[in-house]
Amino acid sequence: MFVILYYDVNSKRCGKMLKTCRKHLQWVQNSVFEGEMSDAGYEKMILELRKIIKVDSEDSIVVYKFRHMKYYDRCVYGTDKKEDIKFI
Amino acid sequence: MFVILYYDVNSKRCGKMLKTCRKHLQWVQNSVFEGEMSDAGYEKMILELRKIIKVDSEDSIVVYKFRHMKYYDRCVYGTDKKEDIKFI
Repeated sequence: MFVILYYDVNSKRCGKMLKTCRKHLQWVQNSVFEGEMSDAGYEKMILELRKIIKVDSEDSIVVYKFRHMKYYDRCVYGTDKKEDIKFI
Repeated sequence: MFVILYYDVNSKRCGKMLKTCRKHLQWVQNSVFEGEMSDAGYEKMILELRKIIKVDSEDSIVVYKFRHMKYYDRCVYGTDKKEDIKFI
């Protein structure tokens, strides 16, 4: 499946979130990630991320799951931060 | 088309961004929005948003455009802030 993931967490946990998301997905911008992954890979990632977030601190993760990577366009307006992408 | 929009702007411009995005799309979480819109509606929205952002301040907007609303799942982990949604 193709996944778009966005997180909003307390700054204390940003580093861990970034590192874990980058392990599984491609970084797009700030707290937005995307990538193709298997069901098993997805479950593994979510398990890791849920261990990091604290619900009582209003941390949250939003995930869009698509059957295929079928978005026909991704547009960036303003500063494109994608040049910083590192593939791990 | 179906649109997922994410923005990251200086806090000074957050209010304006939120208001403008809400006029055109449905608020999902923090700075994430989604919705069905026409090409003309999209162009109108982008024109309005580009007037708000300041590129030299590293403001940015990322938009995913899909032909149809075909994501088969949107999952929220942690705090679900969607209860605050207002349709304008």
